[in-house]
Amino acid sequence: MPYVNIRVTDDDVTAEQKAALIKGTTQLLVDVLDKDPAATMVVIDEVNPDNWGLGFDQVSELRARRQG
Amino acid sequence: MPYVNIRVTDDDVTAEQKAALIKGTTQLLVDVLDKDPAATMVVIDEVNPDNWGLGFDQVSELRARRQG
Amino acid sequence: MPYVNIRVTDDDVTAEQKAALIKGTTQLLVDVLDKDPAATMVVIDEVNPDNWGLGFDQVSELRARRQG
Amino acid sequence: MPYVNIRVTDDDVTAEQKAALIKGTTQLLVDVLDKDPAATMVVIDEVNPDNWGLGFDQVSELRARRQG
Amino acid sequence: MPYVNIRVTDDDVTAEQKAALIKGTTQLLVDVLDKDPAATMVVIDEVNPDNWGLGFDQVSELRARRQG
Amino acid sequence: MPYVNIRVTDDDVTAEQKAALIKGTTQLLVDVLDKDPAATMVVIDEVNPDNWGLGFDQVSELRARRQG
Repeated sequence: MPYVNIRVTDDDVTAEQKAALIKGTTQLLVDVLDKDPAATMVVIDEVNPDNWGLGFDQVSELRARRQG
Repeated sequence: MPYVNIRVTDDDVTAEQKAALIKGTTQLLVDVLDKDPAATMVVIDEVNPDNWGLGFDQVSELRARRQG
Repeated sequence: MPYVNIRVTDDDVTAEQKAALIKGTTQLLVDVLDKDPAATMVVIDEVNPDNWGLGFDQVSELRARRQG
Repeated sequence: MPYVNIRVTDDDVTAEQKAALIKGTTQLLVDVLDKDPAATMVVIDEVNPDNWGLGFDQVSELRARRQG
Repeated sequence: MPYVNIRVTDDDVTAEQKAALIKGTTQLLVDVLDKDPAATMVVIDEVNPDNWGLGFDQVSELRARRQG
Repeated sequence: MPYVNIRVTDDDVTAEQKAALIKGTTQLLVDVLDKDPAATMVVIDEVNPDNWGLGFDQVSELRARRQG
């Protein structure tokens, strides 16, 4: 019955990458906790880097500085 | 004071359907737990079927197979 | 495929009330969006009233004042 | 290590306002709980007012009535 | 910068199993999306089976029936 | 109408500290976005350090090593 919510920045994540995250997370719950994959949900949220803060700063700002 | 988060796939849910989910959920909390509707929040998240996994697969993939 | 998270204050919610919330929410998703109940998850979180704020104040504080 | 999720209606929140929410929330966790800002995440979700319910009604509906 | 929330039923998950979920999820985000593990958070929530519904029923009820 | 969820490790956070987080977060939403405090909810989740991962490791493990 697990529910997993993966939140990442919105950086052109491909459908293949999303499929790999879903398969990998579900397999992990099977391997570690013997969960039923048929009842395992994974939901991926893609978040605008302006909306994500780390250490006082927006990720968009942190990236701009690194490249500046 | 309840907060309810309803996550569904993004399938052209209409404003009327959203209103029905909000009214129904709020009424349920009034009926079952005698909560104050004025302090009851419901937030609906619509999720891309590529981003939702069930049983190792993306919902978008499961749907394509069913129709294939 | 819906996932619903219901957050309420931790006030001796009974197993019967939890069952009623789960049945009612699932039925609502069937009625409004024609969702498959077998793939509908509902998770109830019970939160300490000290940890819930509304309008600047803790719910525990708001309740103490109302009775004071 | 805190993680904060701020959910607001999607009303043209500017990048400057998002930055202010991130800075303010992170500072609050430093001030109140002495948390390490470098390990503090803040994620802002902007929600369509059709998808947000308060007191049986959609926020979009509540706003339309107030202006009607 | 990923944040992952894993919700499972509260079934005596050991510290070793929790560590395996954290390592596995973090590694998956490194492998699939090349994320920085130092900025990857994983939070595991353990939920009372009375509070988890699937297909109209509480997980606690589903388990009792299976054993009944 | 904002909803804020603050997740921190479960380290004997006092009722006073919780009140300060609630007041501070609500004030921030008033100051930055002119939100109505009466419709602003803040919910604090306290998480076992065994259940929180950062950079491949449990926070409980990271702390034990730092003191070791």
